Amino acid sequence: MLTEATLELARTVVQQAVATGQTLATAESLTGGLLGAAITTVPGASDVYRGGFIAYATDLKATLVGVDPEMLGHDGAVAATTAEALAQGAAFRCGASLGLGLTGVAGPAEQEGHPAGTVFLGWYAGMAPGHRLVQLTGDRTTIRAGAVSAALATALALMKRLAEDSARHPGRE
Amino acid sequence: MLTEATLELARTVVQQAVATGQTLATAESLTGGLLGAAITTVPGASDVYRGGFIAYATDLKATLVGVDPEMLGHDGAVAATTAEALAQGAAFRCGASLGLGLTGVAGPAEQEGHPAGTVFLGWYAGMAPGHRLVQLTGDRTTIRAGAVSAALATALALMKRLAEDSARHPGRE
Repeated sequence: MLTEATLELARTVVQQAVATGQTLATAESLTGGLLGAAITTVPGASDVYRGGFIAYATDLKATLVGVDPEMLGHDGAVAATTAEALAQGAAFRCGASLGLGLTGVAGPAEQEGHPAGTVFLGWYAGMAPGHRLVQLTGDRTTIRAGAVSAALATALALMKRLAEDSARHPGRE
Repeated sequence: MLTEATLELARTVVQQAVATGQTLATAESLTGGLLGAAITTVPGASDVYRGGFIAYATDLKATLVGVDPEMLGHDGAVAATTAEALAQGAAFRCGASLGLGLTGVAGPAEQEGHPAGTVFLGWYAGMAPGHRLVQLTGDRTTIRAGAVSAALATALALMKRLAEDSARHPGRE
């Protein structure tokens, strides 16, 4: 389901979180738990990974994770705003310093007018939330694995930047 | 992460749920999302899989899924009562007809006095909750995959039994 390179990236993410004192939470739609599963392959992940949500049905994005139902109805489940709100809800509700949200179209069918492979990756780390649109190709398995890999790579980059910012401005910690 | 046999079992679970009108929800601890990930490998899983929780940190089993914190403190995270409460919370909070809960020790270290490979699998299907204690051997990856496989096999058996009961007593539907 995931390549050795992705599992190696998960190990690096856990090591970086341990080294910088970050904690992680996830809210996943198209990946259905695969991001959490990747992180928790790593022994000792429980030191930094709090947990998260598999908000597969659209309504659970609101009821479980706290995405604004009005925004969800307006923007759709596959949207940058939804990815950011999933990340923020995961961070808040799981008490983590970094929240990651994944929503998109695993395929084979399109969804809400978006082709398979459209993935919005959101993050929240106690400042304004952010997102990336990742356009993947391939079958359902490849798209889901690519989404997990992108989320891990982004988490790693974010944690490095947060650690650098904190080293540069120690008074603002 | 999962064998082809386990992925085939996931396909059968989704087909059985579609055929019998059941919906599924999950609350996972040691598997960290791998059960949800297995179910959602199947195209069309969204017709029957609502979603769930990755309650990896012990406190999230209470705050996210609704496990009684007093019982959790008394019985521990790795317990039959906790597995049943995870299943019940998943079914209730995700609005599914069948909830599955997985808690146990992936290893390599023991936890709460239980050796690696101790897995409690809970279920809830609108009647009294139930559980199975599954004792697995092997490394972390093998134990987590074995737990997912056991959960899928149990879900399949439960759905078959529920469908038979409902056919035998149509008035109680």
